[in-house]
Amino acid sequence: MPLLRSWVDSANRADCDFPLNNLPCGVFSVEGEEPRCGIAIGDFVLDVAGLEEAGLLALDGGPLLDVPFWNEAMEAGPAVWAALRARLQDLLAEGAAEREAVEPFLVPRAAATLHMPFLVAEYTDFYAGRNHAFNVGSMFRGPENALPPNWLHIPIGYNGRASSVVVSGTPVRRPWGQVKGPDQPMPAFQPSRRFDLELEMGAVVGRASEGMVSVAEADEMIFGYVLLNDWSARDIQAWEYQPLGPFQAKATATTISPWIVMRAALEPFRVSTPPREVPLLPHLQEPGPMLYDIALEVGLTPEGGAETVIARTNYREMYYSAAQQLAHHTTSGCPMNVGDLLGSGTISGPTKESRGSLLELSWGGKEPIAIEGGTRSFLEDGDTLTLRGHAQGEGYRIGFGNCSGRVIPAHENPLGAGR
Amino acid sequence: MPLLRSWVDSANRADCDFPLNNLPCGVFSVEGEEPRCGIAIGDFVLDVAGLEEAGLLALDGGPLLDVPFWNEAMEAGPAVWAALRARLQDLLAEGAAEREAVEPFLVPRAAATLHMPFLVAEYTDFYAGRNHAFNVGSMFRGPENALPPNWLHIPIGYNGRASSVVVSGTPVRRPWGQVKGPDQPMPAFQPSRRFDLELEMGAVVGRASEGMVSVAEADEMIFGYVLLNDWSARDIQAWEYQPLGPFQAKATATTISPWIVMRAALEPFRVSTPPREVPLLPHLQEPGPMLYDIALEVGLTPEGGAETVIARTNYREMYYSAAQQLAHHTTSGCPMNVGDLLGSGTISGPTKESRGSLLELSWGGKEPIAIEGGTRSFLEDGDTLTLRGHAQGEGYRIGFGNCSGRVIPAHENPLGAGR
Repeated sequence: MPLLRSWVDSANRADCDFPLNNLPCGVFSVEGEEPRCGIAIGDFVLDVAGLEEAGLLALDGGPLLDVPFWNEAMEAGPAVWAALRARLQDLLAEGAAEREAVEPFLVPRAAATLHMPFLVAEYTDFYAGRNHAFNVGSMFRGPENALPPNWLHIPIGYNGRASSVVVSGTPVRRPWGQVKGPDQPMPAFQPSRRFDLELEMGAVVGRASEGMVSVAEADEMIFGYVLLNDWSARDIQAWEYQPLGPFQAKATATTISPWIVMRAALEPFRVSTPPREVPLLPHLQEPGPMLYDIALEVGLTPEGGAETVIARTNYREMYYSAAQQLAHHTTSGCPMNVGDLLGSGTISGPTKESRGSLLELSWGGKEPIAIEGGTRSFLEDGDTLTLRGHAQGEGYRIGFGNCSGRVIPAHENPLGAGR
Repeated sequence: MPLLRSWVDSANRADCDFPLNNLPCGVFSVEGEEPRCGIAIGDFVLDVAGLEEAGLLALDGGPLLDVPFWNEAMEAGPAVWAALRARLQDLLAEGAAEREAVEPFLVPRAAATLHMPFLVAEYTDFYAGRNHAFNVGSMFRGPENALPPNWLHIPIGYNGRASSVVVSGTPVRRPWGQVKGPDQPMPAFQPSRRFDLELEMGAVVGRASEGMVSVAEADEMIFGYVLLNDWSARDIQAWEYQPLGPFQAKATATTISPWIVMRAALEPFRVSTPPREVPLLPHLQEPGPMLYDIALEVGLTPEGGAETVIARTNYREMYYSAAQQLAHHTTSGCPMNVGDLLGSGTISGPTKESRGSLLELSWGGKEPIAIEGGTRSFLEDGDTLTLRGHAQGEGYRIGFGNCSGRVIPAHENPLGAGR
């Protein structure tokens, strides 16, 4: 598919994240007004709530967009998702008759504040990257026991904490937690010293289910994708995670990009998961390509310093797709809801430069990496992490916008500090 | 504290779960009407939404009760909780002047359908029973490695799935899942053969927090308690739980009792957690008694058969209180919300007859227990599990109502069966 040209000139630039092919969903506000639904196009946010109110956009069951979240539009179902997209592509296309009527609803992105694009119902995080699982397993259990026995048979996941999901730009405070090294007789309660990122994609569930769904059905339940940074306190995790998994180590914050890229925008970029090392049971097999070719990178910017790109990888490195994860998620009859968020798991490529966490990049802190003006084993106060991603089309790209967060110092005394 | 006598005669019976001292919060409906908030008193549900509408109950920020959940009343805060309780105790007390005005708002409990008493924001389940952790650890890792190294230092917990929490009376369908025995070369996808209960208490969070809270503050954030059965598929759990903890094994259903017993009603029954085997770090120490003396039992009734009580225990057996769990939950800065539900973990006593799961009662299926007309290792289709609990006062008791669920057969083919 070629670039779809728009009368919004900035949307036609080859390096623009938000061409007419994309139309990702966010929530924005301008000074003095309430947050509402918007769509990114070129250098602008299109006030789709305003378009709806003005009668330029009529959706079944509407109004759906005069609220500070996309959940109502997601609830309306795939026919509405398609109608929304088709109507906006008409309104914004080069030569569109409605240009004059639509133009007043364009807000310069620089003047807009972006908010959480949807209400997170529940948040699940997976562990579905082959290289990440092997790297972490090697560090913790040695390379011969790196992959747990179940890993090649099911997408391993755990329930995360929806209340901790924040939008790009929200500062992330270094957590306190209980930690204990193997040589210490007693644990200590202190700020995390091994605070880390995890480069992931997030899938946003747009349809509810009861009972089990197939992988094909699961794919159709996904409304869209975001970039996702699952901040992780490795020292807290190491002490707490046996036997019931990560808990407080992953509960400080998970940052997502402000734009949900609809699945429809990513269709041209579908790729298959890698060949299976052992066959999957039938209920988890993919009927078609359900990963996406999305180039990803992580930039680290120290306080007052310049950015270093510390990792470059691609979403196609995953062993399991979000559709497979979602199907597995329903096997037990677990009800899924609109607004559920599934983290892909850390996306690490096969090379050292493509690892999606500092834990792997610095090999547990043993091999600090070089950055502009210094080195890093784990995150330091003042570091800003920025995840970027895009799918590359012919003469255009489908981008997600930055997924960014700055580490701010731990409270001196956590008790009572945050109430 | 003695029995507070009510003009509702049935509330004064010594064996009534719902005397004037209790006043637990539920959601009910009668035929043809919408569900709304109600309070149990004797053999009746008091239509407190109706009382509010009639001007007999005025709460700050009200109306709060004309909705099918207690979240709005919880949001209103502890002063409103106390005012509600005080006003209802006045209205329902023996000799109350308002008796004639209030009486029309009593609905016989037998005529009321009970619904989920609150919207579950997020659900966390803990593993805080010393005997349960030792028993399960012994089976999986041998008695010498039974307790994980962190267990005596932090209340181990994991995030569960809020969407799977259901009210007493909801049938529970046996789940499918991926399982693999140690001797099998490949996993299989099949209905669970080791479906189990977990006898727990649930704490309902009534106040939001950001940042860390102390154990004392955490105690005050708890609105009340419910009985909780965390249904668990042991065969699915055994295969999936390494390294990130239980996931689909615990996502089929968690049943709670229909009544939230307010913390205020339990005040006379506070007891301390047991002596520490190793000292806790200061931030987890209890400033006072924060467990409760609540007698608990589990009845198992096979299809068409008679009930056998398979376990009797007490909430005071826990090693950590809900307040300690909640304080630990916030250490990382994890935001807590009104409607969060914390499962205590399985409550097993020191004796065989006081174990809160079939996994422990039948020692992993090796020692089936006797029930009326048969034996059980794990649950069979048609079995009804009923959890009951009460705190025993002088001449009265504070009960929770039954927490009950019947196991119905697995779908023949799970795919597409439940949509």
